[in-house]
Amino acid sequence: MLAEIITIGDEILIGQIVDSNSAFIGKALNKIGVDVYQISSIQDDRTHILAALKEAQARVDIVLITGGLGPTKDDITRHTLCEFFDDVLVENSDVLLHVEQLFEKYISTPISDINRQQALVPSKAQVLKNKYGTAPGMWIEENDTVFISMPGVPFEMKGLIENEVVPRLKSRFKRPFILHKTVLTHGVGESAIAEKIASWEEELPSFVKLAYLPSLGRVRLRLSARGKEHAMLETEIERRLISLHALIGDIIVGYEDDQPIEVVVGSLLAKQHKTLALAESCTGGHIAQAITAHAGVSSFFKGGVVTYATISKTTLLGIPEDFIATYSVTSSEVAEAMAKAARQKFNADYAIATTGNAGPEKGDGDVAVGTVFIAMATPEKTYSQKFVFGNLRERTIGKAVSKAFEMLHSELKDA
Amino acid sequence: MLAEIITIGDEILIGQIVDSNSAFIGKALNKIGVDVYQISSIQDDRTHILAALKEAQARVDIVLITGGLGPTKDDITRHTLCEFFDDVLVENSDVLLHVEQLFEKYISTPISDINRQQALVPSKAQVLKNKYGTAPGMWIEENDTVFISMPGVPFEMKGLIENEVVPRLKSRFKRPFILHKTVLTHGVGESAIAEKIASWEEELPSFVKLAYLPSLGRVRLRLSARGKEHAMLETEIERRLISLHALIGDIIVGYEDDQPIEVVVGSLLAKQHKTLALAESCTGGHIAQAITAHAGVSSFFKGGVVTYATISKTTLLGIPEDFIATYSVTSSEVAEAMAKAARQKFNADYAIATTGNAGPEKGDGDVAVGTVFIAMATPEKTYSQKFVFGNLRERTIGKAVSKAFEMLHSELKDA
Repeated sequence: MLAEIITIGDEILIGQIVDSNSAFIGKALNKIGVDVYQISSIQDDRTHILAALKEAQARVDIVLITGGLGPTKDDITRHTLCEFFDDVLVENSDVLLHVEQLFEKYISTPISDINRQQALVPSKAQVLKNKYGTAPGMWIEENDTVFISMPGVPFEMKGLIENEVVPRLKSRFKRPFILHKTVLTHGVGESAIAEKIASWEEELPSFVKLAYLPSLGRVRLRLSARGKEHAMLETEIERRLISLHALIGDIIVGYEDDQPIEVVVGSLLAKQHKTLALAESCTGGHIAQAITAHAGVSSFFKGGVVTYATISKTTLLGIPEDFIATYSVTSSEVAEAMAKAARQKFNADYAIATTGNAGPEKGDGDVAVGTVFIAMATPEKTYSQKFVFGNLRERTIGKAVSKAFEMLHSELKDA
Repeated sequence: MLAEIITIGDEILIGQIVDSNSAFIGKALNKIGVDVYQISSIQDDRTHILAALKEAQARVDIVLITGGLGPTKDDITRHTLCEFFDDVLVENSDVLLHVEQLFEKYISTPISDINRQQALVPSKAQVLKNKYGTAPGMWIEENDTVFISMPGVPFEMKGLIENEVVPRLKSRFKRPFILHKTVLTHGVGESAIAEKIASWEEELPSFVKLAYLPSLGRVRLRLSARGKEHAMLETEIERRLISLHALIGDIIVGYEDDQPIEVVVGSLLAKQHKTLALAESCTGGHIAQAITAHAGVSSFFKGGVVTYATISKTTLLGIPEDFIATYSVTSSEVAEAMAKAARQKFNADYAIATTGNAGPEKGDGDVAVGTVFIAMATPEKTYSQKFVFGNLRERTIGKAVSKAFEMLHSELKDA
């Protein structure tokens, strides 16, 4: 069962937006045992769309198309689909009613002919209801290939995938199970791990694949198993993980199914009825942002301060100016004082603090660009670690955020 | 001059990571007048890679490949390139020396045979030096098509694009100029704008393209011009923008070349020698994160508080508990009190505050999910606006961040 995602829109090709839609669709399909064979991002161009549809039809069983369904002249997907299927556009009364209702409820301008044209769909298409917008999703089958067209607006696409596309694919196709388990390691490079586990890797059965995913400061090992029996896959992966742990247990910091580390840490906090506060300097709100991007965090997240200017460490956290002057603003002493103060100000069980220089220029402190101190305050103790992450700003911030969550994870995992 | 980007790696197809590399490459190529015709994300699979290379060769002049260059068994790009070009791998002494130096400097484990194999490159390839990693970039020409292979690790790829690929493409190919100008509008939907500017759009010359980019709470209109004479393109775009302004000037909030709104606002603050502080509740650090993701912000950004728990609005910002109880935590009064307090605590010229309920569950306040109050405190006044963004968390936070920057932009643009 293979799928291809075709995203239509020049804004992706010129780098104006990052294509996060495809990752969302890929994840949703993977969960129900549909393999994404290829993602193709193409121009808003008739010839190009026709060629891409033809190529995809030859390669896969399911073609998912996003973009180009808006009401304006640069949106040509609907007409091009019609041409591809040798079809005509007809007005769909359900869609028209929905468009009229949306306008009545949310939009102050009167409905126009352009808006009414959103109700035109190819006669061969089944309409997929788009709760959040005027452009409907469409499902067209031809020669055993299913074509699904959705708007490119992320929340409209997501609604369609969850409410319409996934349920229909599940009932339309028989699919295998796909299980992934990702092992998080730290401290050792990709090639050194590969040498240590070479013979273990050789012995993996053909239906289990291993991938190395190096990212900021750590290597993730992803095991993927595919087959018809869910229980057998689970047992097999479990068995392989146990023998892997015997080889490199010392560098394994955790496992993830599908969850980023901030969610893993959040679940641990919630389960233990503990709370968290932050005092961020060089990470500038990136840790808070990662936490609050997910729903349901108010049960454990108290809040944080972003003390970007040195003086704000005094005014907000009450760290004396002469203390900062004595130890330097980028020091383990200041990091620990920040963590302690955040823990107390927010009345939290745990607090994380960061201070450092993400670069590219030297700031108020006297440390090299890329130096970061991360401190952890717990009910029992306060301590910190020093890191040197190099001279790329984005990378330094990313690594610091990742390390902060790892340190918190170490505190929580055995609690 | 057409290019195709091929990203190799199952992690993109299963949605484990979002492909941000392609956006970076697309932007870099666009700036030098190279058009990205297609982006193809494909599996770590020999047959699939060979097929994708062949298809791309038929379509474009430049093929940029990322991924699959690591030292482990799942990395097969190097061998597959060799097969595609009917070539052999040879040891490159410069690369070997570089790998040895990297290990000496940064890595505690001794260098192994697997690491030394990173110095094997196809004999037809020119090596592109990867300062930040062990896998070299490669440049291979065949039948007038240039193939460029780079590692998938973002900062390694970025270094190669900036230091090696762009300079070489500039000297290898004659390229047209491409100019983009994006007009930011607010308050009116895509189709209503399209009707207002229909005849203006009709009259655009063939070398100027218009695209509608609807996103959270606003529509951006992107004009792209392409041609041999830079000055002529600039004049033409300028002329079209003036006539556009005459039609819809009332809904235009700004223009961007290539810059997100937080950068535009940051430049205005820096130019006016003004400073900014934040008090974020429902946006949970997302505004701070957007600002500090960019370098050079310490000249205007003082910091912020993330008062996620209601009580922290009292302990951190000094807003009396009974004040919050009287007006409710999600109210214009509390938002304004937060902004005033942040402005004073951080000793900043401007402060933005957010309080609301991003959902999905009802929080401490008594407003509907999706309701957000954004307050602005300036040297002269404090005021707030109420928004209702709907019941999708991610969208509500995104819209609130975008609105906050728009409100600040309105304050600064005429100052």
